[in-house]
Amino acid sequence: MIAIETFVHILDPGGTFVFAISGAVAAVNRRLDIFGILVLSFVAGNFGGITRDMLIGAVPPAALTDGRYLLVSVLAGLVTFFLYAGVNKLHAPVLMFDAVGLSFFAVAGAEKAIAFGLSPVMSALLGMLTGIGGGMMRDVLLTEIPQVLRSDLYAVAALAAASIVVIGHLLGVSYGISALAGGIVCFGLRFMAIRYD
Amino acid sequence: MIAIETFVHILDPGGTFVFAISGAVAAVNRRLDIFGILVLSFVAGNFGGITRDMLIGAVPPAALTDGRYLLVSVLAGLVTFFLYAGVNKLHAPVLMFDAVGLSFFAVAGAEKAIAFGLSPVMSALLGMLTGIGGGMMRDVLLTEIPQVLRSDLYAVAALAAASIVVIGHLLGVSYGISALAGGIVCFGLRFMAIRYD
Amino acid sequence: MIAIETFVHILDPGGTFVFAISGAVAAVNRRLDIFGILVLSFVAGNFGGITRDMLIGAVPPAALTDGRYLLVSVLAGLVTFFLYAGVNKLHAPVLMFDAVGLSFFAVAGAEKAIAFGLSPVMSALLGMLTGIGGGMMRDVLLTEIPQVLRSDLYAVAALAAASIVVIGHLLGVSYGISALAGGIVCFGLRFMAIRYD
Repeated sequence: MIAIETFVHILDPGGTFVFAISGAVAAVNRRLDIFGILVLSFVAGNFGGITRDMLIGAVPPAALTDGRYLLVSVLAGLVTFFLYAGVNKLHAPVLMFDAVGLSFFAVAGAEKAIAFGLSPVMSALLGMLTGIGGGMMRDVLLTEIPQVLRSDLYAVAALAAASIVVIGHLLGVSYGISALAGGIVCFGLRFMAIRYD
Repeated sequence: MIAIETFVHILDPGGTFVFAISGAVAAVNRRLDIFGILVLSFVAGNFGGITRDMLIGAVPPAALTDGRYLLVSVLAGLVTFFLYAGVNKLHAPVLMFDAVGLSFFAVAGAEKAIAFGLSPVMSALLGMLTGIGGGMMRDVLLTEIPQVLRSDLYAVAALAAASIVVIGHLLGVSYGISALAGGIVCFGLRFMAIRYD
Repeated sequence: MIAIETFVHILDPGGTFVFAISGAVAAVNRRLDIFGILVLSFVAGNFGGITRDMLIGAVPPAALTDGRYLLVSVLAGLVTFFLYAGVNKLHAPVLMFDAVGLSFFAVAGAEKAIAFGLSPVMSALLGMLTGIGGGMMRDVLLTEIPQVLRSDLYAVAALAAASIVVIGHLLGVSYGISALAGGIVCFGLRFMAIRYD
């Protein structure tokens, strides 16, 4: 399914970008310097995937071998640094992008774990970790208790998406379809959570 | 020595369970949600072993390939969540179980490091890390300075157990015997520390 | 170039030593016990290199297979523990040694990443990470926002050194020369920053 593959290749850096924005905004709020902002951008955008890759033995992690992840993270950091007021005003849109990023990361993370031979349950959990890991490390570096540990629906949405991919894999459904289904469920859960918060 | 092997297979999930309880209790005390409690349970019960496995190149880590670790961690989280008052009253018994968990983790961690070809000194230190790593990460996620850095006897007990296993290995003593000796020393040190605190 | 190789073999434990001192001093300031001091020494002196090695797949990391790193870290911890007043008075000299350590770690980290086949940009960043990683983890364990995220020139100096090594590699310059050039630039930047702070 070429169409979905293409879709995924657009979403992947897109997910990194929005997560990196969340890291950069948090860094600006804590009055970090431009270097600190760039580090937080990269960490928030890539730590989940890096952790997953190290756990499954896919080293060096994709975030280090594929230059797009770095490029997109730095871009997000610079955009936030120069247009902070603008970015901050975009709170609602950023949350929407974040929901898209979470959906994609959870789906792609689960798929990669399956490909590396992990069990269904662990693949689903690694999908969730891919989605929430960047934000957790962002908060640890800023000495805050990770937000995701306080608002469980965020992680549950990621877990739902990853689980759908895993179940689809067990049932022999094509990845494109289960990824789409998982992504829609995750985005839908986040959309409602943001809407009725 | 089949008897000791069996003993170990009972102790292993037992160690994970009591450490996971410590994570869950800490999470409840910081008013985390059920998801945060489950994450802290898993982290406290498994982070030491996961770190050891990643350092020695045993990926994916056992905690991710053997479903019992997850099962036991989730169970500990749920038990704590639903029976918090009861678990908290069990402070003294939990400390005893924690001493058992520490003993086993230190012993098993050192043995695994030896099996992966690390030097005697590093094997002893990795045994200690296996024992204390979960509690350290639990505290980092809750933005507290790891307790083990403040009370050195805890780590020393783990180091003693791991060292005995390593020395036994160097002297050609069977693993069952040195593991038992190491475990008894570690438990004894912790028992006295808890008793005369 | 035997002379430079020798130079490097002296600098390497030297870099670990001064970073370990920084960890030990921070631990004493937070009133940690002797065990906490030794852990912080080891973490500050080796975490950057360990992280780099795990990211590029060089496991077990050099800090675990080469006993000198542990020896030097423990030595630094003990020296600080017993001679704290003296070490603390040496603030300016320690900063100078720290600049030397940073220079070496950045240079050696970049070289190792190149040897493991990472791209030029990532090799430069991993060189920087090798230099700053120990200090970051030291601060995380003490629940402080990593200092390096607040003072960007520190990381930039490391990045400059690593970049020079990478560019030298691309231009076919011998490692000895580019390492020396990178080290001098990094040390010079730090020297001026310390001087005119």
